[in-house]
Amino acid sequence: MHSNPPNDIPDIVIGRLPIYLRALNRLAQDGHEVTSSHELGQLLGISSAQIRKDLSHFGGFGKQGTGYQIAYLEEKLRQVLKVNREWEVALVGAGDLGTALAHYGGFSERGFNITCVFDNSAEKIGRSLNGFHIQSIDDIATTIPSRGIKMAMIAVPAKNAQEVADKLIAAGVRAILNYAPINLNVPPEVRVQYIDPVIHMQRMTYYLP
Amino acid sequence: MHSNPPNDIPDIVIGRLPIYLRALNRLAQDGHEVTSSHELGQLLGISSAQIRKDLSHFGGFGKQGTGYQIAYLEEKLRQVLKVNREWEVALVGAGDLGTALAHYGGFSERGFNITCVFDNSAEKIGRSLNGFHIQSIDDIATTIPSRGIKMAMIAVPAKNAQEVADKLIAAGVRAILNYAPINLNVPPEVRVQYIDPVIHMQRMTYYLP
Repeated sequence: MHSNPPNDIPDIVIGRLPIYLRALNRLAQDGHEVTSSHELGQLLGISSAQIRKDLSHFGGFGKQGTGYQIAYLEEKLRQVLKVNREWEVALVGAGDLGTALAHYGGFSERGFNITCVFDNSAEKIGRSLNGFHIQSIDDIATTIPSRGIKMAMIAVPAKNAQEVADKLIAAGVRAILNYAPINLNVPPEVRVQYIDPVIHMQRMTYYLP
Repeated sequence: MHSNPPNDIPDIVIGRLPIYLRALNRLAQDGHEVTSSHELGQLLGISSAQIRKDLSHFGGFGKQGTGYQIAYLEEKLRQVLKVNREWEVALVGAGDLGTALAHYGGFSERGFNITCVFDNSAEKIGRSLNGFHIQSIDDIATTIPSRGIKMAMIAVPAKNAQEVADKLIAAGVRAILNYAPINLNVPPEVRVQYIDPVIHMQRMTYYLP
């Protein structure tokens, strides 16, 4: 058994851990205390063998035949993913989408707190959004390092997204959730995840009659 | 060369085609007429060999040494993905998120038109959202088949999402974009894509110091 996760876990495995965690949260909410790779597999449409293999990277979570203790496995996955703590997040873009993100309760519920908001529009700078004053994009360079913020969401038009990403990275951000429909060029030490719902829609039409 | 795509294209390849299409759109907007697997690879962080292999599933798009004609490749990918037409989409849930989705211009720009909206709240039913009257969830069973709608977005709380999905599928929907933070059980002929930004955030914290 490993007490700390080794560094060579494939990214694709890391990508599935939050999905396991969400399923475990739900089982716990529904009053379950124990689950199995078989039950998780049925909930998620992932084979039970894959789930056992993924979880084995982090040491023995369950005993053969007795299943997984949900509370223990949740705690362990939170620890591995480093979501057993709160994270401060910067939001760039205070348009329709940025406003919806600022008001979305699902982030803070799960430990991601948007604590500063930036926009480049003179009309918006100085206004309040969900309790925070909207700051100028130029303030990224000072506010982000002074608060030690490592995560940001980009909700600006595609044409501004790369410039915003460059400023965020220069200020110390190392993880970006990008809502702009454009791929970002970032150095290898920075992680980017993309949210573009149209891409998901276009992935499904192929299968429609 | 195939004139129609064969049926055995791996889903993971299908999943990359919209990303190629988006990059091509952007290159075209920037005034480019020709590109290469090398240039696309650099834009997207995907190896040029992978890109050539993915595109080879659909016949010869480019000539060795001369690159890809962007307009031709865009048209061909649109055809393969069936996004060279407009799609009607039903939206279920007219809360904060549903409202943001109804107002988001990026869907109709790329051929996905939200043309009906459903909610279960008596306060919301009958009101207008982006020009459409909000209908009762009970109307799914009649409105969706009568319009022949095959795609829907679910923007309701997790506890209602499975029930909504069941109603949509019974009414003929075959592709669902699910914003509720829960995995849906659907029959094999139905495609589901998930949008849960917290999952993406949790996937990045693992790598943060």
